[in-house]
Amino acid sequence: MKLNIAVLPGDGIGPEIVTQALEVTKAICSKFNHELSYKEALVGAIAIDKTGVPYPQETHELCMASDAVLFGAIGDPKYDNNPSAKVRPEQGLLKMRKDLGLYANLRPINTFPSLIHKSPLRAELVDGADFMCVRELTGGLYFGRPQGRSEDGNTAYDTCVYTREEIERIVRLSYKLAEQRNKKLTIVDKANVLCTSRLWRQVAQEIEKEFPHIETEYMFVDNAAMQIIQWPKRFDVLVTENLFGDILTDEASVITGSLGMLPSASIGIHTSVFEPIHGSYPQAAGKNIANPLATILSAALMLEYAFDLKEEGALIRKAVDASMDAKVVTEDIASGEKAYSTSEVGEWVINFIK
Amino acid sequence: MKLNIAVLPGDGIGPEIVTQALEVTKAICSKFNHELSYKEALVGAIAIDKTGVPYPQETHELCMASDAVLFGAIGDPKYDNNPSAKVRPEQGLLKMRKDLGLYANLRPINTFPSLIHKSPLRAELVDGADFMCVRELTGGLYFGRPQGRSEDGNTAYDTCVYTREEIERIVRLSYKLAEQRNKKLTIVDKANVLCTSRLWRQVAQEIEKEFPHIETEYMFVDNAAMQIIQWPKRFDVLVTENLFGDILTDEASVITGSLGMLPSASIGIHTSVFEPIHGSYPQAAGKNIANPLATILSAALMLEYAFDLKEEGALIRKAVDASMDAKVVTEDIASGEKAYSTSEVGEWVINFIK
Ligand SMILES: CC(C)[C@H](C(=O)O)[C@@H](O)C(=O)O
Ligand SMILES: CC(C)[C@H](C(=O)O)[C@@H](O)C(=O)O
Repeated sequence: MKLNIAVLPGDGIGPEIVTQALEVTKAICSKFNHELSYKEALVGAIAIDKTGVPYPQETHELCMASDAVLFGAIGDPKYDNNPSAKVRPEQGLLKMRKDLGLYANLRPINTFPSLIHKSPLRAELVDGADFMCVRELTGGLYFGRPQGRSEDGNTAYDTCVYTREEIERIVRLSYKLAEQRNKKLTIVDKANVLCTSRLWRQVAQEIEKEFPHIETEYMFVDNAAMQIIQWPKRFDVLVTENLFGDILTDEASVITGSLGMLPSASIGIHTSVFEPIHGSYPQAAGKNIANPLATILSAALMLEYAFDLKEEGALIRKAVDASMDAKVVTEDIASGEKAYSTSEVGEWVINFIK
Repeated sequence: MKLNIAVLPGDGIGPEIVTQALEVTKAICSKFNHELSYKEALVGAIAIDKTGVPYPQETHELCMASDAVLFGAIGDPKYDNNPSAKVRPEQGLLKMRKDLGLYANLRPINTFPSLIHKSPLRAELVDGADFMCVRELTGGLYFGRPQGRSEDGNTAYDTCVYTREEIERIVRLSYKLAEQRNKKLTIVDKANVLCTSRLWRQVAQEIEKEFPHIETEYMFVDNAAMQIIQWPKRFDVLVTENLFGDILTDEASVITGSLGMLPSASIGIHTSVFEPIHGSYPQAAGKNIANPLATILSAALMLEYAFDLKEEGALIRKAVDASMDAKVVTEDIASGEKAYSTSEVGEWVINFIK
């Protein structure tokens, strides 16, 4: 098979962790006789520095021409605490999501036995938790218009908009994911207050009929924020709108105690993007200490979702588990024992694959 | 002093727990020689059943004429999972908030040593956590207009609106609370995406200058959702807009392990409302098993915030702590030992006060 991917390292630790994930992908391709072709492009603060915009047209064209995008992280302290700066790295992220039609952000939340003690939750609550958060990524308050200020500047407004098509698309995708998993779908909204949520619930209740073998449950977002902490094992697939998803997926990711281990997939109309859920961690940039495993696991998701290469993805996962069993891990997850560097961990995983 | 209050028991366990809180208030008033006058009124599902609307005009007039409102809980299973029903109990709650101008919902989050083991978090993370969540309660997506559907019904929209005055009012209140506490304020928004959040941050940055002795920090809502679990002790006062507040305050309340113990105050223009943060718990209604302590502690907040009766409020708190030390508690927080009934717990607290 021929794999044609775009590589967007981004800012901070992005380049280091993406390098390892790319090397792992190369190792997989040579083992399974796939042909990998890839090109790199700029995104984020580094793109602003070099081109003036955070998501240059050239980068967009490369992504459009690729079957999948391997993404690092974006963000630079010089843009922090200045959310009204004219040009910001996050704008690149949002533009990329919109222009590539990345409508579904998938975040598998699972725990690693050797990291349970790092969870802020009591071990018995979180041990074995394994669910999938699906966040709608191109609608809602993030992109609704009008958005702005009154003439005197003293009133501000944002608009939350959802269409039937947007909701159908993501709810149907979520049911399909539930079919491949434990056959339960939790649909999170605020239908007791919001009109958009009532459309979500109405559309979901229609689609529910197509999936009688899946257990469907509806939950208000405030309740979901509680249940994720109180009883994470009750979830299988959880789907929600963009802003609720922003909040709930971050909440869900910290309960595992392994933030540095969690990958994500953003499924798009034109192509799909695979990236770790953690940020650009500028303090660690260039030090060869960042954990590359979330990005390596994102490469596994890429093989599975973008290329339907199940066996290849599974081998990466096995190699990551093995590196953890062998305690070849970076300082963020090493406890007591020796910490390895970013590249040492990457190389260990590659050798395991070979 | 003359205390003139409205009593709104509401649905489910509301009447039972409010009865205990009212008896406690009576005991305090007779001990400290205050004159208490009160009247009851309908709200919630029971108001719909009896009058057709969830917040009758008569109830509103009573509240307007009172110095404070003691509130139970609303909600009935017959309205659940039917968010598009024409008349619903929650509408009463929202109408009451708007009509009484209840702009600030205050939720003190604190832990009880004897309940730490009920927290989903590891004890060392949550033991000693003590912060105050301030949620803006009459603006944002909850009340912004336009809200509705396109003509064909296939597009839905909600509007988030905030004015400078609304933000100033709540941010200033939060700074004043921080002055009386540990002198730190966390302002939570999504200023990297929302225009309303950028107005929040701009206004907050102006008011910040008036309070140089308070440490101010700005945090994105997704980050706040993580930090509340990872490091709850870092917070002192946290302020945010309506919908973020809905989600974050519920998240914050479960980390204590003592949901049945948490009171709230909704500060208003015309009067203020005091209620437990838990719901109407219909399964327990009429069984005399519900925990009355959150409502009793809400009465303490009422004495402090509405009547500036500090000593009186403190005595209620002391009585509640004593009842817990004596293990005179309802089944939800009894562990192993005998569980007491709602009225037994209330009577114990009253006897302690006397
Ligand atoms: C950086 C920001 C705009 C972004 C979002 O809110 O979507 C981030 O928090 C995320 O979740 O990817
Ligand atoms: C019942 C509902 C409308 C309400 C809200 O969202 O404000 C509730 O969740 C709350 O927090 O008091």
